[in-house]
Amino acid sequence: MDRPIRVTVWNEFIHERRDESVRAIYPRGMHAVIGDALVRELGERVTVRHATLDMPEHGLTDEVLEATDVLTWWGHWAHQDVSDEIVAKVVDRVRRGMGLVVLHSAHFSKVFRTLMGTSCRLRWRGGEDRELVWTVNPAHPIARDVPVPIVIPEQEMYGEFFDIPAPDELVFVSSFSGGEVFRSGCCFYRGHGKIFYFSPGDQEYPVYHHPAVGRVLANGVEWTAPAAGVLGSEYAPELCETGWYDEEIAKQGAAQAEALAAEAKAGVR
Amino acid sequence: MDRPIRVTVWNEFIHERRDESVRAIYPRGMHAVIGDALVRELGERVTVRHATLDMPEHGLTDEVLEATDVLTWWGHWAHQDVSDEIVAKVVDRVRRGMGLVVLHSAHFSKVFRTLMGTSCRLRWRGGEDRELVWTVNPAHPIARDVPVPIVIPEQEMYGEFFDIPAPDELVFVSSFSGGEVFRSGCCFYRGHGKIFYFSPGDQEYPVYHHPAVGRVLANGVEWTAPAAGVLGSEYAPELCETGWYDEEIAKQGAAQAEALAAEAKAGVR
Amino acid sequence: MDRPIRVTVWNEFIHERRDESVRAIYPRGMHAVIGDALVRELGERVTVRHATLDMPEHGLTDEVLEATDVLTWWGHWAHQDVSDEIVAKVVDRVRRGMGLVVLHSAHFSKVFRTLMGTSCRLRWRGGEDRELVWTVNPAHPIARDVPVPIVIPEQEMYGEFFDIPAPDELVFVSSFSGGEVFRSGCCFYRGHGKIFYFSPGDQEYPVYHHPAVGRVLANGVEWTAPAAGVLGSEYAPELCETGWYDEEIAKQGAAQAEALAAEAKAGVR
Amino acid sequence: MDRPIRVTVWNEFIHERRDESVRAIYPRGMHAVIGDALVRELGERVTVRHATLDMPEHGLTDEVLEATDVLTWWGHWAHQDVSDEIVAKVVDRVRRGMGLVVLHSAHFSKVFRTLMGTSCRLRWRGGEDRELVWTVNPAHPIARDVPVPIVIPEQEMYGEFFDIPAPDELVFVSSFSGGEVFRSGCCFYRGHGKIFYFSPGDQEYPVYHHPAVGRVLANGVEWTAPAAGVLGSEYAPELCETGWYDEEIAKQGAAQAEALAAEAKAGVR
Repeated sequence: MDRPIRVTVWNEFIHERRDESVRAIYPRGMHAVIGDALVRELGERVTVRHATLDMPEHGLTDEVLEATDVLTWWGHWAHQDVSDEIVAKVVDRVRRGMGLVVLHSAHFSKVFRTLMGTSCRLRWRGGEDRELVWTVNPAHPIARDVPVPIVIPEQEMYGEFFDIPAPDELVFVSSFSGGEVFRSGCCFYRGHGKIFYFSPGDQEYPVYHHPAVGRVLANGVEWTAPAAGVLGSEYAPELCETGWYDEEIAKQGAAQAEALAAEAKAGVR
Repeated sequence: MDRPIRVTVWNEFIHERRDESVRAIYPRGMHAVIGDALVRELGERVTVRHATLDMPEHGLTDEVLEATDVLTWWGHWAHQDVSDEIVAKVVDRVRRGMGLVVLHSAHFSKVFRTLMGTSCRLRWRGGEDRELVWTVNPAHPIARDVPVPIVIPEQEMYGEFFDIPAPDELVFVSSFSGGEVFRSGCCFYRGHGKIFYFSPGDQEYPVYHHPAVGRVLANGVEWTAPAAGVLGSEYAPELCETGWYDEEIAKQGAAQAEALAAEAKAGVR
Repeated sequence: MDRPIRVTVWNEFIHERRDESVRAIYPRGMHAVIGDALVRELGERVTVRHATLDMPEHGLTDEVLEATDVLTWWGHWAHQDVSDEIVAKVVDRVRRGMGLVVLHSAHFSKVFRTLMGTSCRLRWRGGEDRELVWTVNPAHPIARDVPVPIVIPEQEMYGEFFDIPAPDELVFVSSFSGGEVFRSGCCFYRGHGKIFYFSPGDQEYPVYHHPAVGRVLANGVEWTAPAAGVLGSEYAPELCETGWYDEEIAKQGAAQAEALAAEAKAGVR
Repeated sequence: MDRPIRVTVWNEFIHERRDESVRAIYPRGMHAVIGDALVRELGERVTVRHATLDMPEHGLTDEVLEATDVLTWWGHWAHQDVSDEIVAKVVDRVRRGMGLVVLHSAHFSKVFRTLMGTSCRLRWRGGEDRELVWTVNPAHPIARDVPVPIVIPEQEMYGEFFDIPAPDELVFVSSFSGGEVFRSGCCFYRGHGKIFYFSPGDQEYPVYHHPAVGRVLANGVEWTAPAAGVLGSEYAPELCETGWYDEEIAKQGAAQAEALAAEAKAGVR
């Protein structure tokens, strides 16, 4: 994009205010740390705002959404408390081009489940597993400058079978001390939008403080950002009578002929 | 499968009874012709029953669903009249393993839209286009014994952009006289189930009488059929404490050791 | 297929005759154990023959190849000793429809590397890792009746980045005690053929005696088998002048019209 | 990339000098027009150099290759005259990260065929077909600012079955007046590199003068450009003894702990 990517970091923000153990790790809230990581990695290429569940309209008013290029989403305890109306607006805007970065337990958010069409269930264990995040597609933009492996000393285990559609692009696969594996970095194209799901990030562990995780989130924001902006309205094509693209035929034909004529003048043997 | 595939052919069955032009093509209903095609192609490998919108529970009672390995779905005029409760049961059973073959305008059915998570919209024209269905993956089972191209003399034009997730496997791509193209044979894995979408089949044209189309539907039924049956309940893993698969470790370790011991006896130098 | 699948199990057969430790596990050769597993799992649905490196033409004479529906390949020490001429014949036949099941260190065989177009390199360690093979696509035919996870008590570690093209279908992902992960069950469509790569199977460990591994190999043979047989010659289309498919237009148009006429007679209101 | 993308436009440059009809369209050579299009679209984001078959080492000396981020390739008449040594160097550099944009008849180049592992054959006709290029993934970066459809008044027909591996990402599908279809915009990840194949571009038609085609080529160059540069040597991992990534464990653990400590100081309730 030719202008800074406008990111809205959405966070449930319940655990940090309710659980002492989480507050100790994220006293300013997970969203503050995520936002800081994006700014640290992307500098002037990004501007960040925050929104949380308890704000009016969950902080996702029409005004905020229309000024959002990429939305990141972390939720866990209160998926059911996100209003269906806001969910519908978010889903609609993703289909129109807004990028979506889905984090950890947000695999079970209404927004992600609606866009995936599957149950999005997985195996899990809140133990003392170390997670190793391995790159399986080093050519992918989201793998840029990411160490191999990413070592997360303590994390909640997420294990296969992860009931999602096969990712359009699989970037990372994780292992856990207990032996389980998980497709932890998954890219999806949906409508005019792009979605990146990244699994590390349980609230009990300081995962979003991990510099490499910040790098991945930044890469994810850049990859999901809509280069050509977001459509003004949903994709809903009209009946296409014969001749419906005649204007393109004429316009493009003229452009090509013009360029060819210019070449004839410019051509040197 | 080791027993016949039990297919339920679901049809809206409104056009055939309301529109003279459609009744002339499908006097017994589209479902009868589709069912006949499956039996003609698969013989004893399949048993067919029918269900229509106007039946109690749309003919998809618990008893019928539990005896269905593959459900085919054709709808157009009355997607909104399919009860949400039945839609939920069908979607749940697909995720548990039931095959689903989605036909033509059923791209816009509640069942398909829920499973895809996208708008499923497309460009269209009810004109006099000839459709040519081209095979782009000849190694795919659904392409077996299908002529190249399939020539459908008259069909409703469906054109890109077809707002679906990229198919896990793309088998057919169609062209239309007006120049449009369409990904017309699309395979999806969703949960424990498989879905095949095939686009030709507007009610105004005798498409389901076309032998090659019958061949494709039969291939689609065989491909989507759940080889290992349908799960008894939805995939909803429990918390997986460390040691949760110890039983597999013991059982498989013993089996491998046993086989190795047998080999030692059988081995000849 | 309507007749038994004709499988040729190709094995380098060097380690079994040279290394005491391997001979103790596979006294009759790895190929004998693999062949037995296929027969045990598939019964009359399969017939098996063997071929080894040291046979004339590596046992892959024209006669043998033409009677082969699926070729399995295990090699490790002597990839370079497989003649380029035989490699070319095998690659050609896979592109024409012959199934190919590639095992373990055969990731580095000339046949597989030619078909993949990538280096096929990977990380490895011959230690004491336990391998766990996890199913990531339970709807896939190759996952049928496979326990979750497959526990292989001792195996050579294979780790990402595994330099292959992204599999068309990813069925299994493995973890190792050392923390590494590997895409261990990979499906590819290439030309008119199908390829299944399955990584467990180092010669120092009795992996092919493992019943679940035998199940996977059997599933892989069934999935890769060419339902419509193998093309008689390579796919090499001619110049397609306008009208090149007119015959199909006429034939199919007549067939559809005929079926429609029959329906008019059969139709009951 | 943070610096201009260094593009080398490779062209066979035989037809322009041999065929009057082609010279009339491309008097300065196809490569000049392609290069101009890239500069017009990307401005300072790109620098362009040219290389042709008849140059020493086909213009692809080690010096040139090492200064190339993205290589575009057009060839038709003389694929066999490209030296195997240069082909090997190009293929190696693509696997190490260099982007590759393959144009039209270069589907049959040694470089592309080696990387694909398939025959890359297709149906064709040098007639008077109009080609329409349709976007099937509007969210993809390569689809950015591309009109729908791209109308190419006259083009050589390329038709399915196009014997390539299924693209990792399919961006465009074309139709031709004769009814054929073709997957015309295909993305592949191979090793550490990315490949974009775009089919329009027969030498007898002024396709590379078409502004929309120039837009696609520019998007393709940006998409294939290696954000993190090209690896210094081929990916060839060593034996990975247990403990091989201990350094990452220590380094990353320290970094995360440090960030967490900083947060404790910064945290405000």
